[in-house]
Amino acid sequence: MTHDCSFLEALALADDQLSFAMGRREPRAADWGTQDSDEAVVPDAVVWPESTDDVSAVLAAATDHGVPVTPFAAGTGLEGNAVPAHGGISLDLTRMDDVIEYRPEDFQIDVGPGIIGTDVDEYVADDGLFFPPLPSSGDISTVGGMVATDASGMKTVKYGEIADWVLGLEAVLADGTVIETGSRAVKTSSGYNLTELLIGSEGTLGVVTRVTLRLAGRPEQIRGGRAIFETLEDATEAISDAIRTEVDVARIELVDELSAGMANDYLGTDLPDAPMVFLEFHANHGVDEEIDLCRTIFEGHDVSRFEMSDDDAEMERLWKARRELAYAVRSYDPDLEPLHPGDVTVPISAYPKVVREAKRLGEQRDLLVPCFGHAGDGNVHYSVLVDPDDPEMVDRGERLYRDLVELALEFGGTATGEHGIGLGKRRFLEPEHGAGAVETMRAIKRALDPTDTLNPGKLFPETLEGERVRERGPTDGD
Amino acid sequence: MTHDCSFLEALALADDQLSFAMGRREPRAADWGTQDSDEAVVPDAVVWPESTDDVSAVLAAATDHGVPVTPFAAGTGLEGNAVPAHGGISLDLTRMDDVIEYRPEDFQIDVGPGIIGTDVDEYVADDGLFFPPLPSSGDISTVGGMVATDASGMKTVKYGEIADWVLGLEAVLADGTVIETGSRAVKTSSGYNLTELLIGSEGTLGVVTRVTLRLAGRPEQIRGGRAIFETLEDATEAISDAIRTEVDVARIELVDELSAGMANDYLGTDLPDAPMVFLEFHANHGVDEEIDLCRTIFEGHDVSRFEMSDDDAEMERLWKARRELAYAVRSYDPDLEPLHPGDVTVPISAYPKVVREAKRLGEQRDLLVPCFGHAGDGNVHYSVLVDPDDPEMVDRGERLYRDLVELALEFGGTATGEHGIGLGKRRFLEPEHGAGAVETMRAIKRALDPTDTLNPGKLFPETLEGERVRERGPTDGD
Repeated sequence: MTHDCSFLEALALADDQLSFAMGRREPRAADWGTQDSDEAVVPDAVVWPESTDDVSAVLAAATDHGVPVTPFAAGTGLEGNAVPAHGGISLDLTRMDDVIEYRPEDFQIDVGPGIIGTDVDEYVADDGLFFPPLPSSGDISTVGGMVATDASGMKTVKYGEIADWVLGLEAVLADGTVIETGSRAVKTSSGYNLTELLIGSEGTLGVVTRVTLRLAGRPEQIRGGRAIFETLEDATEAISDAIRTEVDVARIELVDELSAGMANDYLGTDLPDAPMVFLEFHANHGVDEEIDLCRTIFEGHDVSRFEMSDDDAEMERLWKARRELAYAVRSYDPDLEPLHPGDVTVPISAYPKVVREAKRLGEQRDLLVPCFGHAGDGNVHYSVLVDPDDPEMVDRGERLYRDLVELALEFGGTATGEHGIGLGKRRFLEPEHGAGAVETMRAIKRALDPTDTLNPGKLFPETLEGERVRERGPTDGD
Repeated sequence: MTHDCSFLEALALADDQLSFAMGRREPRAADWGTQDSDEAVVPDAVVWPESTDDVSAVLAAATDHGVPVTPFAAGTGLEGNAVPAHGGISLDLTRMDDVIEYRPEDFQIDVGPGIIGTDVDEYVADDGLFFPPLPSSGDISTVGGMVATDASGMKTVKYGEIADWVLGLEAVLADGTVIETGSRAVKTSSGYNLTELLIGSEGTLGVVTRVTLRLAGRPEQIRGGRAIFETLEDATEAISDAIRTEVDVARIELVDELSAGMANDYLGTDLPDAPMVFLEFHANHGVDEEIDLCRTIFEGHDVSRFEMSDDDAEMERLWKARRELAYAVRSYDPDLEPLHPGDVTVPISAYPKVVREAKRLGEQRDLLVPCFGHAGDGNVHYSVLVDPDDPEMVDRGERLYRDLVELALEFGGTATGEHGIGLGKRRFLEPEHGAGAVETMRAIKRALDPTDTLNPGKLFPETLEGERVRERGPTDGD
């Protein structure tokens, strides 16, 4: 579907803030998760707002003209979150990347949504501060995108998710109204928590134009390293035990034996193709006690190697297999491609069971299913590798992918710990939350954006009018 | 206004679940903050639900009949949060106080809303667990009430507020629909965050019928004690410095010299009438290093005494002035009563300024204004003492009370860090959040509760139809 966006020319935008050129529109029809999707639609126009006023003017006019607006920034989403489903305007926020105000005396910084995550870290580094909850893509993803999906990452096990570090927002609603949420106080009981409502709403309720972030002091002691186990059961049970013993760990990442093998191939390393756990510890004192506690727990699960260092280069070396893993998986077999990225998250006691089931199903159905990810959060990233030219195999893969989501939901977990729903996981919204909760979400959407201007087609398995959306998934129809 | 609640007799409630007796209705027209308020209205009926089904049936019928429902439990709110403003039904949730499911392997517990905070602690104590964010009234307040106001307390400086420990809720909407929010995973990016929307909404969007809480392991090392300073400036700057140095403190409470004097009088102790800071440290190791760091910072602000202990009885003794302070303030002068409890919260760098201004205004306007509270959060509790029979003094006190809220808002803070808006702080909602945000909150309220069944008259300075509510405050009309 296409929309007439010529009304944009009447707005007070500079020439370089608006484009109808295919060369600018097309790149905004794909993100990291939708390269090959036919659900992602090329927008009819791209606008680069440079101020809150620009955003407000575009949204008011778009709502007036019944044209969809999909906020976009780095394009690193994994579920098509920022890719238009219904055409219209791609609102590219990358130019709103300023540090608006920095208050080191309160560990706070106000930034534009387009700022890159690690640029925040760099800006505050001289004061010994950092922004803890960055996702793995923090060096290319924007803070606005992280807010939109309530992103998290490796350090969430210690520091929490993005939402835990956002004190307030400025956002523009569909009709152009600018609102401010939250406060600069570290806690408040005043009114509805609009900040948390907007975080993770994937641009469907408002466009975030300013984010007030909390910062933390950098820890004085950092140690990093790696443990290698004989069996996957040992590795996952060791992780689960460590978390339940409240070992103060800042990163604790699983790489299963299949992924380890792929990484060894890719990097040319001669490590065993065995389950690995990557660790980092942050503390102001007592880091060695925490490492000892972790080692003791791991020894109870027959850890075969446990290497830790305080040297940056050595830590980097020990972590290499984890850091390069996504590339290793993609390079493993030129005929195979990973299906949508698995992102289930479960209570920590269920973590070993989900990983075990992923492997069991892979073997049973003759599919490669490397598992890895932010184990300490109970977050299992899994890739189902399929030959995209083999429809039967794709279908088999889709079923395995879905079965693992359903298993996670049976354990009271979530279909998506950190990537959001976007296009890819709409079919799991209702199984996870139930019809009543989804209808409540939809009522909020209707109240705040009655014309469905903002990022339509995302999150909900049905349109606001109740029409079921077409979606990816296995062909067996259940 | 009164409402005909006879329709309740047709519901499947036992005899002892419904009362129209004045002796049962009247106690539900007051909480800790509204003893003398004429805004609190006696409900027309009291219902004690014993199940989610009961709550659902009552809400559906009440909405049908256009009768307000105000959830009530321990009655320890400080802003009339759970006291009917428009009559109707007081929904007393104290019987829904079960532990529904306990999952120690995941540090999680599902409880009914009526359970007392410390009963959770007791239930999980044998596993070495505790529920960290309890407010000071945790031994009499219910978890449901804490969720309704997003309560926090002394340990929030280390552990966060209630919202940080709630993974999910079951709630009943105005029309009787039962929804479940959140999940048992420690993080999720799936859909709108209805959990956080309901937390702090003071029963205006739904009635919480089950709360899934996270728990923490009890720290191995606990030390507690007290510091005494020469001047209030020294005390507040020392606190601010300690927080900005990220001293790992679990409680850090101010008691100003006026409050200290009241406590000395009340307890018959011979401590100096000087500003005091009460401290508690929790750690698994390194607690002494943190105490040393704190002492060093305090010495930079001329601390005159710094006493710390690991002995329970001695800690209790050192803390006595803080623990008994509320009673000491109330007992100080039989002719004076505290006005509404101040609860402003500001960024930590502004904390000394707000406390200083409270004292300055008190002296300038000839009013006693004891200040105390959860200093580490930037949370200033202040009592303005007035003779309730002296209208000029009450008015002077109201103005001082308001001026401090306005000052906090100028610093980007909040009118209420932990008590909620209720009846008492409605006039500050819009100054704090702006018209756009308040209208957004109201749009959500209309979407979820279009008939304004749930706790009407609370939070918003206007009715859903836009009629301005009458409210306490100074008589000068600005």
